[in-house]
Amino acid sequence: MPRAGTSANGRPRPATIRDVAERAGVSVATVSRILSGTYPSAPTTRGRVLRAVRELDYVANARARGLAGGQAKSVAIVVNSVISPHYAHVAQGVQDEAAREGRLCLVGTTGGDADRELATVQLMREEHAEAVILVGNIVVDDAYHERMAGYARALAAAGSQLVLCGRPPLGPDVPAIVVEYDNTAGAHAVTSHLLSAGHERILFLGRRAGYTTPDSRVAGYRAALAAYRVPHDPGLEVDGRMDRQEGYRMMRARLDEGPRDFTAVFACNDLIAAGARQALREQGLRIPDDISLAGFDDLPSAADIDLTTVHVPHEELGRTAVRLALHSETPGTVQHVMLGTHIVVRDSVRRRDVLSA
Amino acid sequence: MPRAGTSANGRPRPATIRDVAERAGVSVATVSRILSGTYPSAPTTRGRVLRAVRELDYVANARARGLAGGQAKSVAIVVNSVISPHYAHVAQGVQDEAAREGRLCLVGTTGGDADRELATVQLMREEHAEAVILVGNIVVDDAYHERMAGYARALAAAGSQLVLCGRPPLGPDVPAIVVEYDNTAGAHAVTSHLLSAGHERILFLGRRAGYTTPDSRVAGYRAALAAYRVPHDPGLEVDGRMDRQEGYRMMRARLDEGPRDFTAVFACNDLIAAGARQALREQGLRIPDDISLAGFDDLPSAADIDLTTVHVPHEELGRTAVRLALHSETPGTVQHVMLGTHIVVRDSVRRRDVLSA
Repeated sequence: MPRAGTSANGRPRPATIRDVAERAGVSVATVSRILSGTYPSAPTTRGRVLRAVRELDYVANARARGLAGGQAKSVAIVVNSVISPHYAHVAQGVQDEAAREGRLCLVGTTGGDADRELATVQLMREEHAEAVILVGNIVVDDAYHERMAGYARALAAAGSQLVLCGRPPLGPDVPAIVVEYDNTAGAHAVTSHLLSAGHERILFLGRRAGYTTPDSRVAGYRAALAAYRVPHDPGLEVDGRMDRQEGYRMMRARLDEGPRDFTAVFACNDLIAAGARQALREQGLRIPDDISLAGFDDLPSAADIDLTTVHVPHEELGRTAVRLALHSETPGTVQHVMLGTHIVVRDSVRRRDVLSA
Repeated sequence: MPRAGTSANGRPRPATIRDVAERAGVSVATVSRILSGTYPSAPTTRGRVLRAVRELDYVANARARGLAGGQAKSVAIVVNSVISPHYAHVAQGVQDEAAREGRLCLVGTTGGDADRELATVQLMREEHAEAVILVGNIVVDDAYHERMAGYARALAAAGSQLVLCGRPPLGPDVPAIVVEYDNTAGAHAVTSHLLSAGHERILFLGRRAGYTTPDSRVAGYRAALAAYRVPHDPGLEVDGRMDRQEGYRMMRARLDEGPRDFTAVFACNDLIAAGARQALREQGLRIPDDISLAGFDDLPSAADIDLTTVHVPHEELGRTAVRLALHSETPGTVQHVMLGTHIVVRDSVRRRDVLSA
């Protein structure tokens, strides 16, 4: 190997990135990241590298550095909206893991519109995002399956990886990584908690037939009732979407209907629970003294209202999505990971007082 | 003008987008949006356009359609993180207004790292985002001013517009739109509310010298004390960052220090307030009976803990940013808008009982 700055025939040759790395005592990868400016680096390391660059008169190949005409490496996450804390926390997990890996993080919001989702995925692909992570609740039908398969193949062809978070797998012939968490087991656990506290008439707020997340939670609720041999009453399932205003609306409407025929409420998520709680409090009903309440998600705000709920590992979902995507051997890997959920017991559930309730 | 499909010399010419628009009875812009797939459209309109395309055998110029090698129009917002509900709601406002205007919305998260911010802004510029909106709390020094001025000019040169949200203006020579909200007036109002309820010893949680948002709120707090001729005690100002864990830490540490020398707490934001409230409750202190508490932001979760706070128009901030950016006559406009804040009175503040407190 010629001395740095001298080519095989003895004439001076331009310094390479390898020369800079050797002079600075770091790896080539470190030099690359520091020069492309996408990686936070310790000031002393940075100083050594920049000094080596100066001393060796190193002119980076702009293309190799990914600057002129190239772009910083990135991962992308596509969600309905960021005001849903669940999505925001998954995105945070993606951002944290991306930063650790020296990538930028882009979040696309679709408002639940399939056209915007398509356009956003296309944009991310043109952006050469290494991973495109789709998160959230969806209706799974043939059109959906085709659309996802289309994304997966287009992304794989562009050297990128599709990851689905919190959605069911697409089958072995679609090159997608799927990271899920166990909705059904979590719902089963919290419903069992209510049943074992003596509640047999449990109102479920937030059914939404056809949507994977509420469907899985309703399934867990029903399975727990069956396990306890409590008759399933579809009249105790209230349809609605997974936000606070809907929780308020559903609870308020039910209370307005007439005498209460339930002693506990299982809200499909913590946002619904917060809205339902507001409606209950407006009617002078105390939790848990008058009525027990449980949610799902374990959002940070759940602790503020002492809510018994199901913990969902939101940030771990995001981190896992990025880790699997960036470390899969080839783009277009098929993988399926299921993260666990567990119940968090706080103070919103009380034993049903058989004599008074 | 030759008949659609016929050129001036009578030979058939390819159909243009204008021909399609005329045949479908819509504008050229509508045809363009429908074909590029980034715009939700009424099924009947879409049907007419697609039929016209078929009948005229129209082959879109891919570049003109922004598909092959081009990209869908987008606006970008750059924040520290999306788990802060304030940032998430501003991003939601950006997303909503962008969707209304037929643009995609990209959110970049920086984790507060200036290198990542730079790389993200560069990426958005290469993406030809029409507006790049930077949000949030910052240290304003010469380095910051230079960095922002650099962004503004680079973006203007690329036909894009820099917007700063919730940050002070950069001066008339920097081509940036600035959309702010009145932190100082809001803090003044809520502190006056506490003072008029008889509280003279008000603990401020979340001072962070040099950062624009807490600095403005501390300024409002101090100005209200001065207006009520209550002596300012710097020992009543506790340093910390604007999140829930910090609120808990600050309150807990203060309570552990010894006998309480304050009757009210003004938390720099609602997240701090929620954390402080947890620490207070753990010590058996009731709000407002034992101690009054106020926050800032009026996050949706503030109502769940009956928190008196200051309303910040988060989503309007985002919508305004997009509206001003997309409708400014030329890229590189200088504009400064200040949105108002107002106090929201709930149940966390009580008159100070002079006999017992």
